[in-house]
Amino acid sequence: MKEAETKRKILEKGSEIIHKKGFNNTGIQEILAAAGIPKGSFYFYFKSKEDFGLQLIDFHAGYFLTVLDSCLKDEKLKPLERLRVFFDHFLSLMQENAFQGGCPLGNLAQEMSDQNELFRGKLQEVFEQSKNKIAECLLEARQRKELSSSLDVYETADFIFNSWHGALIRTKVLRSHNAYVLFNKMVFEVLLQGR
Amino acid sequence: MKEAETKRKILEKGSEIIHKKGFNNTGIQEILAAAGIPKGSFYFYFKSKEDFGLQLIDFHAGYFLTVLDSCLKDEKLKPLERLRVFFDHFLSLMQENAFQGGCPLGNLAQEMSDQNELFRGKLQEVFEQSKNKIAECLLEARQRKELSSSLDVYETADFIFNSWHGALIRTKVLRSHNAYVLFNKMVFEVLLQGR
Repeated sequence: MKEAETKRKILEKGSEIIHKKGFNNTGIQEILAAAGIPKGSFYFYFKSKEDFGLQLIDFHAGYFLTVLDSCLKDEKLKPLERLRVFFDHFLSLMQENAFQGGCPLGNLAQEMSDQNELFRGKLQEVFEQSKNKIAECLLEARQRKELSSSLDVYETADFIFNSWHGALIRTKVLRSHNAYVLFNKMVFEVLLQGR
Repeated sequence: MKEAETKRKILEKGSEIIHKKGFNNTGIQEILAAAGIPKGSFYFYFKSKEDFGLQLIDFHAGYFLTVLDSCLKDEKLKPLERLRVFFDHFLSLMQENAFQGGCPLGNLAQEMSDQNELFRGKLQEVFEQSKNKIAECLLEARQRKELSSSLDVYETADFIFNSWHGALIRTKVLRSHNAYVLFNKMVFEVLLQGR
């Protein structure tokens, strides 16, 4: 295996385990065993468990922001339909995972924000970027007269993004699609339909 | 110290540590040391760490539902003002905690829902009760013509409750009141003001 592939495999396997057990509760040896990588090589790829965690945030953020961009830039659809496709994509992922796991970045945000300033700073940056992309989509909807001009697009995007994290936690607790479907309904049929 | 006091002290100290470090990442000995209780006595009060965790949910839920009831039953205020007082109470608590910690029940929901069915069931029950209390408050607002009849009060209450958890996570990440203030604004000035 090439170096880049090995590193990616460690990140992928680490991600799967941490998604189930949390960051603090997952050991490096457990990740390496799952990836079939000799113990010694971890420190060839990562300076420390903290460095691994920070690179894991980049790994998730890369995927997440790519999906967000590819949905929100799909000009075949109206802006609000693009946003809907984005949320539906993650509903499908939750369904595939039997409504377990939730959002890897949201989970790390909750677990690590109080414990590590580097994690907190990096997560805040990803959330800020995500909010801005959603806000641009809402702005386009407004410019096309498909969204009320009474809504502040940045505030609305921020509220939607945060509410989504809450819906994902409740989805785990309910282990059903109910909270997620309700989130979609309240956002698209109530909040974004106002005056 | 009487038995009930000792048990309460273990729950209080355990709660403080778990609020910072998470449930899995906190050891029984650490809790007992912080509470100044001899090691052997834990199993006099709790059958296991799982039993402790389940009783900790009851401990938090007792406080939480009492605050919710006392706010929502305050007939000196209009129903939506009561709800606002409830959210403001927890904003003050977050401020006192320098915007760290977040919601103990929300944290346990995220950490433990996939790992323990008893935790998941108990948390789901507390969230369901909370949602119903908020829905009753919205229903009273609607009966008094202070809330649009176009909103389904149960769905709206559920969405607000879940969104609040999301706002609490973002509050930890931002370590400021911004996401919480935005949550209040979007709920009370936009969502509940519709048509």
